[in-house]
Amino acid sequence: MMNSFGQLYRLTSFGESHGKAIGGIIDGCPAGIAIDVGFIQYELDRRRPGQSDLVTQRKEADKVEILSGIFEGKSTGTPIAFVVWNSDQHSSDYNNLRDIFRPSHADFTYHTKYGIRDHRGGGRSSARENISRVVGGAVAKLLLKDLGITIAAYTSQVGHIALQNDYHLYDLSKTEENAVRCPDPEKAAAMEALVKQIRAGGDTIGGVVTCVVKGVSAGWGEPVFDKLQAQLANAMMGINAAKGFEYGNGFAFAGCRGSEVNDLFEMNEGQITTKTNYSGGIQGGISNGQDIYFRVAFKPVATLLRDQKTVGTNNEEVTFCASGRHDPFVLPRAIPVVEAMAAIVLADNYLMQQARVR
Amino acid sequence: MMNSFGQLYRLTSFGESHGKAIGGIIDGCPAGIAIDVGFIQYELDRRRPGQSDLVTQRKEADKVEILSGIFEGKSTGTPIAFVVWNSDQHSSDYNNLRDIFRPSHADFTYHTKYGIRDHRGGGRSSARENISRVVGGAVAKLLLKDLGITIAAYTSQVGHIALQNDYHLYDLSKTEENAVRCPDPEKAAAMEALVKQIRAGGDTIGGVVTCVVKGVSAGWGEPVFDKLQAQLANAMMGINAAKGFEYGNGFAFAGCRGSEVNDLFEMNEGQITTKTNYSGGIQGGISNGQDIYFRVAFKPVATLLRDQKTVGTNNEEVTFCASGRHDPFVLPRAIPVVEAMAAIVLADNYLMQQARVR
Amino acid sequence: MMNSFGQLYRLTSFGESHGKAIGGIIDGCPAGIAIDVGFIQYELDRRRPGQSDLVTQRKEADKVEILSGIFEGKSTGTPIAFVVWNSDQHSSDYNNLRDIFRPSHADFTYHTKYGIRDHRGGGRSSARENISRVVGGAVAKLLLKDLGITIAAYTSQVGHIALQNDYHLYDLSKTEENAVRCPDPEKAAAMEALVKQIRAGGDTIGGVVTCVVKGVSAGWGEPVFDKLQAQLANAMMGINAAKGFEYGNGFAFAGCRGSEVNDLFEMNEGQITTKTNYSGGIQGGISNGQDIYFRVAFKPVATLLRDQKTVGTNNEEVTFCASGRHDPFVLPRAIPVVEAMAAIVLADNYLMQQARVR
Amino acid sequence: MMNSFGQLYRLTSFGESHGKAIGGIIDGCPAGIAIDVGFIQYELDRRRPGQSDLVTQRKEADKVEILSGIFEGKSTGTPIAFVVWNSDQHSSDYNNLRDIFRPSHADFTYHTKYGIRDHRGGGRSSARENISRVVGGAVAKLLLKDLGITIAAYTSQVGHIALQNDYHLYDLSKTEENAVRCPDPEKAAAMEALVKQIRAGGDTIGGVVTCVVKGVSAGWGEPVFDKLQAQLANAMMGINAAKGFEYGNGFAFAGCRGSEVNDLFEMNEGQITTKTNYSGGIQGGISNGQDIYFRVAFKPVATLLRDQKTVGTNNEEVTFCASGRHDPFVLPRAIPVVEAMAAIVLADNYLMQQARVR
Repeated sequence: MMNSFGQLYRLTSFGESHGKAIGGIIDGCPAGIAIDVGFIQYELDRRRPGQSDLVTQRKEADKVEILSGIFEGKSTGTPIAFVVWNSDQHSSDYNNLRDIFRPSHADFTYHTKYGIRDHRGGGRSSARENISRVVGGAVAKLLLKDLGITIAAYTSQVGHIALQNDYHLYDLSKTEENAVRCPDPEKAAAMEALVKQIRAGGDTIGGVVTCVVKGVSAGWGEPVFDKLQAQLANAMMGINAAKGFEYGNGFAFAGCRGSEVNDLFEMNEGQITTKTNYSGGIQGGISNGQDIYFRVAFKPVATLLRDQKTVGTNNEEVTFCASGRHDPFVLPRAIPVVEAMAAIVLADNYLMQQARVR
Repeated sequence: MMNSFGQLYRLTSFGESHGKAIGGIIDGCPAGIAIDVGFIQYELDRRRPGQSDLVTQRKEADKVEILSGIFEGKSTGTPIAFVVWNSDQHSSDYNNLRDIFRPSHADFTYHTKYGIRDHRGGGRSSARENISRVVGGAVAKLLLKDLGITIAAYTSQVGHIALQNDYHLYDLSKTEENAVRCPDPEKAAAMEALVKQIRAGGDTIGGVVTCVVKGVSAGWGEPVFDKLQAQLANAMMGINAAKGFEYGNGFAFAGCRGSEVNDLFEMNEGQITTKTNYSGGIQGGISNGQDIYFRVAFKPVATLLRDQKTVGTNNEEVTFCASGRHDPFVLPRAIPVVEAMAAIVLADNYLMQQARVR
Repeated sequence: MMNSFGQLYRLTSFGESHGKAIGGIIDGCPAGIAIDVGFIQYELDRRRPGQSDLVTQRKEADKVEILSGIFEGKSTGTPIAFVVWNSDQHSSDYNNLRDIFRPSHADFTYHTKYGIRDHRGGGRSSARENISRVVGGAVAKLLLKDLGITIAAYTSQVGHIALQNDYHLYDLSKTEENAVRCPDPEKAAAMEALVKQIRAGGDTIGGVVTCVVKGVSAGWGEPVFDKLQAQLANAMMGINAAKGFEYGNGFAFAGCRGSEVNDLFEMNEGQITTKTNYSGGIQGGISNGQDIYFRVAFKPVATLLRDQKTVGTNNEEVTFCASGRHDPFVLPRAIPVVEAMAAIVLADNYLMQQARVR
Repeated sequence: MMNSFGQLYRLTSFGESHGKAIGGIIDGCPAGIAIDVGFIQYELDRRRPGQSDLVTQRKEADKVEILSGIFEGKSTGTPIAFVVWNSDQHSSDYNNLRDIFRPSHADFTYHTKYGIRDHRGGGRSSARENISRVVGGAVAKLLLKDLGITIAAYTSQVGHIALQNDYHLYDLSKTEENAVRCPDPEKAAAMEALVKQIRAGGDTIGGVVTCVVKGVSAGWGEPVFDKLQAQLANAMMGINAAKGFEYGNGFAFAGCRGSEVNDLFEMNEGQITTKTNYSGGIQGGISNGQDIYFRVAFKPVATLLRDQKTVGTNNEEVTFCASGRHDPFVLPRAIPVVEAMAAIVLADNYLMQQARVR
């Protein structure tokens, strides 16, 4: 619990939106991994504000600075600490948040839990905390890359516009080609138009991210508690605004018969594989060598550029209207976070499985 | 990870389906809680095979025996160990499973992970392991009861038959009145008929369980990783056959605008409450004092009384047909498990929050 | 914390002296280890009361019963649960302890911490809890044996009688040949005479156990917190009555100069070894391939067959004299416990190091 | 394990001696604690090189910079991250260490464990890592101060010169008055003379630190594993150069009879106290309300300004003589580290006990 995630590959995160810095410590990265800081920065840039006209236009450079754990370009097995300095701090913009509980934000719950909170930009509850996750995940991706594992997430639904096909019918290399991060160019255009229309009304919209992991060997995961899917669910549901998680056939299983969705084993070039993959690559909490895929539902951004009724810290009802630069939806900037958290889970389970093999 | 769940209130589970016993150790239960062993047995009886004509007719008494941690009827603060002896062991029934990987079961993944497995009745991957969870949850419920917290789960969907209304429109005290554990008697009858029809064809069916927690104070949970909803997701997705988790408005959020689903704060008899509860009682990972509710999707039982193609440990393709006494759906027997895992998460977060308050 | 020890190889312990049973769960033992239950029982027998005329004459069979995790003689990678049933329960012997705080026992601190305690035979604070440790350690020894690691502890001091030489000047295979478990037969005889004399006076005596671990590869351990020696210290200082821990040259280092006690590296048959081993086989928290050796100081048993002044739960001063069957010193029965805890630490660090190696 | 210490009050440490910075994250500090950064700096200054003519004359300002977790002077309950930038980096001084394994240092074990190491100034194994501990401990001290707890460590032995009396016969407020940090001015002068003489010969010397904790309530700690003394032992034995730990009467117990050293309870102004405190304030792993005191043995600094034989990474034997600015003994600069680690253990156990109380 608390601000660490993972057991053997472990990210500990710190930082408030308008404090000095956001950062973290990656502990447990094996020694000898080539650490490409350019790749880490690339991943951060995918999460950065201002990267397209669909997301918040805040100017945050978000340059990562590594403080330890790397020597002559390689991990040394010691903790990799990093910081991203907070620069574009219009903290006074947030003075009006000091005494107010914004609807569907964490202001009230932090206030109740701690009795004190850094209200500026949401403080610790800000999505800027995702920076730590993205860096932690980028290093995990470097570790997994050596094992032939790839992780690709994309926007599969925005509002009422949803992709109709399974992930393997899309060319996921196209995901980065549009601002929505949707691999279907037509749907992407429609989603983009929808988001702009909704933003024009000062409103926000929800959506779904699909994530696909290829190359995981059979045998990773835990059999009872913290099953591989349970760890992924934990990882995803810990991302701001995530409200649902399903893997494989997910909620659609509820309407299915066993005879329709059992994954029959077969021999395939001398390997045991499954004819179908409704299971989503995991059986009994342990990877079976097939693709792992899952979906994460996100709620609409809670910050509206509209009047909303709420309550202040003095228990008086007030009307509140946000100003400033905000995202109309979380999807495109959530995608590197989804991938990062998946990477951390997988790196952790890789190490865990290493420990078990004699 | 491994076979323990929870940090301060922690269940460690052991046992195989056809070993000597299933059991566990509850560590961290505070001292001085009245431990009603009759209540623990009642919860186990809700999970027991043979409790209705809708579920497996295996005869398992499943009597809990407490080995430690209770003195003169009260918890002492030391570990509460318990066992349920395995009795109805038709182990030879399972000889045909020794060399086969059943479709959509954990046989193949266990075999790959460990290189050795107890094939009898699924061994450790058997749903009998849920016994440990139910006992661990029953003690957690006793702890939470003193705090005024109730947890109630029910079947909200079986196949294509789904409840249409929100939980607060049902009388959840009726849940236990039918074999499906659905609080809507008419829907329950339809579900029951559906299950019998499907079972007659040697098939199985999926469904959804909804769970409602009332009485949790504002302020419980973790703000970043292991958010309260993330812990619940982890707990639920670790239950056999669970494939999806959503809380509050869940996946439906994806199609919504912020202005439709933000929960506005208001004053209510001197208390800050929310006008609506789309959030599902948690904001920023921390409880806000409203009802916590979530849904868990379950796949159809993988064991079919039909021929299925699969592969054996010798890498040869074979046809397999299960025999014996099996459940056609997991729902009614999964309900006490869902409640139990929720109870463990909440007890753990209660203790965690106690530690934080000065 | 709480009642679990170890991270990847983890023992969770339960049980009170006069409850139904003492036992535990070993989680994380790799699959495929041949589990010799006879060896586990042999280790338990070394800890058993009544094994010689020097220790308590209580009749406790202490037969271990394995409940899970072993299939056809091998570990399956799932939790190994075990119990030892409590049989020789003269619980009424302990009625006089219900309302009294015995000097230098845990009665008062348990009472203060929990507000309730099982007073019978010391309840959870009884040395019978060591049973769990010995079983957990016996399985760890089986794991380590495959790696060529041996662990041997012996009595090196009783009262004023101490061995004068280093461990390598004794034939440690002789340790089990006398009731004191001292490899020097003459000293053993003197120690035995001393203990008998002290016991005759209703008194007790302290001592020191030395433990030697051979065969650990270089590279095990943690470099900063939980250094290998720190884990050993934690393990040893968690044994009842342990009051001091030192490894290598230990407290004697305080009087030494660097030039006297630095361990110079040299080449030895193509291997890097150290000319001396004042360090005790660990440098910077990590094993260096030399023998690991350490010493643990034990206080005299607190239970005296003499009048002692103390205080009752009613805050009134009383005089108390123990009756019954008690040990005059802990040494011989502590030795298998010291070995067991060392084995658990090493098994855990072996798995941890496995996780790290790519 | 790894680079975190503590469960509910947890320090995660990072940094190499000649990397960019040393620092860490304090997680779990309750909200609302007044964080006096001046006090944190004062504690760091006690550890700083160059503070007296008895210790290394390296010029390291060691200014702490807090990056998160504090708002308007108070802790917010979120992680407190901090860095101390490395400034006085004569990294090229260390080029000769790249290919050599210094005797009784961690060079060889790091090399073996990780296959790669930052050789500059010892890298991660440098005593500069203590900076993280001191900051983590300073915040813990602020938390404990509110509870009336004080922690005071002092030098009780250097080489053959040892204090003869128990801690309560010294005025510990005098500890900071001399460079050795010994509360007995005469002994301090003798120790100082001894150190200077030894340093003049290019040699180093060992010693003992005694630490006294006052004000801990009865009831803190864990009863079985991770007993309060075991956690303290773990904390202390994880400090560089620590080789032994004892609490209360420690190793001296080995020579004692129970009748001599049992701590009899008595009533004292309506409170249950002990007539003596040989136990060192802990019974059965749980504090009993008396002073907690313990001793830590330190070996001589391994770096000698003399020729020593050793082996290089190429397996060739070489002669090595350190140059530069080094400590002749660790004692005075280890004292704030001993106090800091004790403070972290106690803060953690305070929170743990809070969780338990209903």
